[in-house]
Amino acid sequence: MAGNSFKRRFLDVLFDYKTEKYVDTKNKKVGVLYRLIQLSIIGYLIGWVFVTKKGYQETDEAIQSSVITKLKGVSVTNTTESGLLVWGPEDYVIPPQGEAVLFVVTNFLETPKQKLGHCAESHRVLDGHCQNDEDCEEGKMVVAGNGIKSGRCLRQDENSTGTCEIYGWCPIERKFKPQGPLLKNAENFTIYIKNFIQFSKFTFSKCNVLETTDASYLRRCRFDEELHPYCPIFRLGDITRRAGYNFQDLATSGGSIGIMIEWDCDLDKGYSNCHPVYHFTRLDINVSNKTIATGFNFRHSRYFKNAAGESYRSLFKVYGIRFNIMVHGKAGMFSIIPTAINVGSGLALMGAGVFFCDLVLLYLMKKGDSYRERKFEEYKSKKSTTEDNNVEDRKGVADRII
Amino acid sequence: MAGNSFKRRFLDVLFDYKTEKYVDTKNKKVGVLYRLIQLSIIGYLIGWVFVTKKGYQETDEAIQSSVITKLKGVSVTNTTESGLLVWGPEDYVIPPQGEAVLFVVTNFLETPKQKLGHCAESHRVLDGHCQNDEDCEEGKMVVAGNGIKSGRCLRQDENSTGTCEIYGWCPIERKFKPQGPLLKNAENFTIYIKNFIQFSKFTFSKCNVLETTDASYLRRCRFDEELHPYCPIFRLGDITRRAGYNFQDLATSGGSIGIMIEWDCDLDKGYSNCHPVYHFTRLDINVSNKTIATGFNFRHSRYFKNAAGESYRSLFKVYGIRFNIMVHGKAGMFSIIPTAINVGSGLALMGAGVFFCDLVLLYLMKKGDSYRERKFEEYKSKKSTTEDNNVEDRKGVADRII
Amino acid sequence: MAGNSFKRRFLDVLFDYKTEKYVDTKNKKVGVLYRLIQLSIIGYLIGWVFVTKKGYQETDEAIQSSVITKLKGVSVTNTTESGLLVWGPEDYVIPPQGEAVLFVVTNFLETPKQKLGHCAESHRVLDGHCQNDEDCEEGKMVVAGNGIKSGRCLRQDENSTGTCEIYGWCPIERKFKPQGPLLKNAENFTIYIKNFIQFSKFTFSKCNVLETTDASYLRRCRFDEELHPYCPIFRLGDITRRAGYNFQDLATSGGSIGIMIEWDCDLDKGYSNCHPVYHFTRLDINVSNKTIATGFNFRHSRYFKNAAGESYRSLFKVYGIRFNIMVHGKAGMFSIIPTAINVGSGLALMGAGVFFCDLVLLYLMKKGDSYRERKFEEYKSKKSTTEDNNVEDRKGVADRII
Repeated sequence: MAGNSFKRRFLDVLFDYKTEKYVDTKNKKVGVLYRLIQLSIIGYLIGWVFVTKKGYQETDEAIQSSVITKLKGVSVTNTTESGLLVWGPEDYVIPPQGEAVLFVVTNFLETPKQKLGHCAESHRVLDGHCQNDEDCEEGKMVVAGNGIKSGRCLRQDENSTGTCEIYGWCPIERKFKPQGPLLKNAENFTIYIKNFIQFSKFTFSKCNVLETTDASYLRRCRFDEELHPYCPIFRLGDITRRAGYNFQDLATSGGSIGIMIEWDCDLDKGYSNCHPVYHFTRLDINVSNKTIATGFNFRHSRYFKNAAGESYRSLFKVYGIRFNIMVHGKAGMFSIIPTAINVGSGLALMGAGVFFCDLVLLYLMKKGDSYRERKFEEYKSKKSTTEDNNVEDRKGVADRII
Repeated sequence: MAGNSFKRRFLDVLFDYKTEKYVDTKNKKVGVLYRLIQLSIIGYLIGWVFVTKKGYQETDEAIQSSVITKLKGVSVTNTTESGLLVWGPEDYVIPPQGEAVLFVVTNFLETPKQKLGHCAESHRVLDGHCQNDEDCEEGKMVVAGNGIKSGRCLRQDENSTGTCEIYGWCPIERKFKPQGPLLKNAENFTIYIKNFIQFSKFTFSKCNVLETTDASYLRRCRFDEELHPYCPIFRLGDITRRAGYNFQDLATSGGSIGIMIEWDCDLDKGYSNCHPVYHFTRLDINVSNKTIATGFNFRHSRYFKNAAGESYRSLFKVYGIRFNIMVHGKAGMFSIIPTAINVGSGLALMGAGVFFCDLVLLYLMKKGDSYRERKFEEYKSKKSTTEDNNVEDRKGVADRII
Repeated sequence: MAGNSFKRRFLDVLFDYKTEKYVDTKNKKVGVLYRLIQLSIIGYLIGWVFVTKKGYQETDEAIQSSVITKLKGVSVTNTTESGLLVWGPEDYVIPPQGEAVLFVVTNFLETPKQKLGHCAESHRVLDGHCQNDEDCEEGKMVVAGNGIKSGRCLRQDENSTGTCEIYGWCPIERKFKPQGPLLKNAENFTIYIKNFIQFSKFTFSKCNVLETTDASYLRRCRFDEELHPYCPIFRLGDITRRAGYNFQDLATSGGSIGIMIEWDCDLDKGYSNCHPVYHFTRLDINVSNKTIATGFNFRHSRYFKNAAGESYRSLFKVYGIRFNIMVHGKAGMFSIIPTAINVGSGLALMGAGVFFCDLVLLYLMKKGDSYRERKFEEYKSKKSTTEDNNVEDRKGVADRII
């Protein structure tokens, strides 16, 4: 019997609904203030957090991306060193296999028929300058130079400053100040960019190439923000123009262009609403003072052997545009956790609003003290003695106010 | 004395515990409803947020990764243009230095002994077609062609459509429709993938190569999801099979395969529980209509010089499989902030539950109005006058209800 | 008239401020406990969440980065196979175009004048061992070997184990155990690292190259953590030393070094306070047992043709240091949402503190039952009948307690 009645009382306590007691202050000023606070929190939550910032979505910013590029176009150059040359993509794209970072040669200086041997170090190398043979210690490398000192100082006459004789690839590359791009046609080369992306959190993947039934469209089209925003073929001249620079200027001494592909995918809206957006930036400038760095070039060489088996090489100093395709983006999809967090924190902030309004009520209102007496009921233990008979009943009741 | 008593009263107010007053409605219906709401929030918090989604963890999704690859295997090809050739990794891996993106040649067309000179443009190039010499303006580039027009139209007879004569690398590459892979053995090549990763937020780093004392294991083993899931050596044929494609089909006209390495590390479980998982996907297909794009190939050339110093070259059109090793993953570790945020938002949602139950109590229960009177105590300022003597005492007390 | 009065009463209810009723228990123990809980939550919120972890900031961890590298320095090697060779960046940097992942040759073995033909397989290849011709099935590839078996077993005498004759590039590369780096000067090579980064969420971009008016500084300077932390030019020997390894050891059999560039940008502090920090790690070691893997090398080849048009090649096995420049980082900027979430969750946790203190008050304090009676007011419906006249007025009032 006793156990049974305890159980009943326990269930009573567990399932009796207890509701907080409020004092209706009839104070309209604080009431309006409270409603305003509530309204602004709800407005912030709905307007900013949910509608603008899509706070109900879980996001995946770790985009995985694979980029394949392919260039098309031919150009002809005619220089004294190299003669009449025809350049195809296999020559002007470095590396030729179509990576996300690729270099297009637009200007070059060939130093053909270099052989290992002795010749004078370049005048441009400070460490190679000498007055007499003692300045050219045999076997020492020329700092930032082209070879190893042989011990001789080569001078035109007794008084002039000479340069050390070196052992290296001779003749040494001549001084070259690019006047204009040699591959004039490079502006019309086209680059086809294929970008496959994946958001592994949502197992969502897509390709930037338009899924069209018109196969010839992907052969004819050229990217254009308004007319062909999903065509993956870009004219090099258009890319530099969109980045804000003149192609011929860039092509002369080289430069670095970033092609940003941005994927901002709202997966709640479905597969077909997720599209890439292309941005073009020049990467080799300082943002603050806008001074353009000296350009972009590097050297590579082609090795040959003559009939006697001796090596000789052609050294190429190539100037050009380095394209760096950078893919970024995020995908968002409805998820209960961020929604709960945002709603929960909004509700908690409403609690802060209550606290603030209470402060105003108690300390800024004229009748503050009178409100306080009603809000804070004094605890008088004598009064409780009159209800001592009830106390027994409540003993052992576990978690009454949970 | 007055200061002292003020101080005492201030401390009284600061440290007197004030507890919210509740009305016990004895309403079981709303009580059960409230307990149900509480239970579902607690269930969501523990079951979903903490156990399933590990909401108590701070995560680092910005994985840093370094990939080194090395291929092994030899193959032989025999073609009319190139003769009997032996292919080692130094030949069929492009680039040879073992990057995360690598290309394995499985098929190729060599156009040997190309020299700069005059020959007919290919019939496949539309812009090279001509009826007479006027169609071939001297000095103009052939669009998407192989060289510069010399001004002559080459035709077999008066009525046929000819092609312009061009200056370029001659002879021009012949038409080639791959029938089957030339490097038949490519299926058995193995790729060793070494992947070093780091989560800088937790200064945690690891390598995918199994830390074993059995050195020979890493020479013998082949990756297998079940038997050898941590062996970093993959047979190319197995990779394509796991991606869902036949190796010989892929090898014929080329393709692109993504090797995803996924690191999902629960750092609370320790270093040894963080393992890579490998996924294989084909990247050059459209997900929606499953049509396979035309394959993957590019051209590269090898330059030679004859005894007279004239350049000639071998042009290689190589077909093959492009492997793109993409590393992603996340690490999670217990952190107080996400725990606090999730617990806090859960508690705040319980506040919303209280609000909802109050609504039910006051507007849906029969005795709603009666409950309301008890919940909302009317403020009667007359009553407060009887306690005016206490009011003075409380003046100046700063933050009573904080 | 009735509509008007209803509207007035509705506005009354909507804008009357209702404040929660508290019981002042005068209990100092629980009061102090409650203040302590409040203090620790506030301390956690301000000290940890906001000051230490910058919880008021929205962060972007998806850094986009473009890296350009350029090496300088010359070295000389002298070997029996290759003779006296001068190495410039165009030779020892692979690939030469200055990528984020680059390889610097420090040691090499050239196998010159390889021609396609027949020779004995290497003794190091297990599958090439044979006792008689039957072990060398004609036309089969040697597993992990250098060519295709011709069907003959080559042995020095009747009893010894021989190797199969193969068709491949002959002579086969000899066994080579690197004794010391051949490019001794490699330690003094310098690498110039240009790193452009972008945080697209905040449209913030920066370059690691110091924006200085002193142009010559960027030519002279060498990176040093204390003296020149923003100089982007690194001596190779310094890099390995900072990673904790001796350059000469690494250079002998090769290795892999990670150059981590960390950008931790507090965008609230402005553009000029965002600086890169450089870290150097060795990547080819196992973190747990610190055993160093066998080094890093790969093979590449240079193809030549003799006067008769026959191909021959030089095979290079190159050992060296692979530098992997890994850029990571995050940017933070004040945002209302994370601030609201953190403040909200802190406030909600205070609610949990109230709950805990109530538990203490009711179940651990001596006067717990007496407190409970005051906290939980019994609902007596008879009392409400005396105010029945008021009930009518409140009917239809929509959301009184919202």
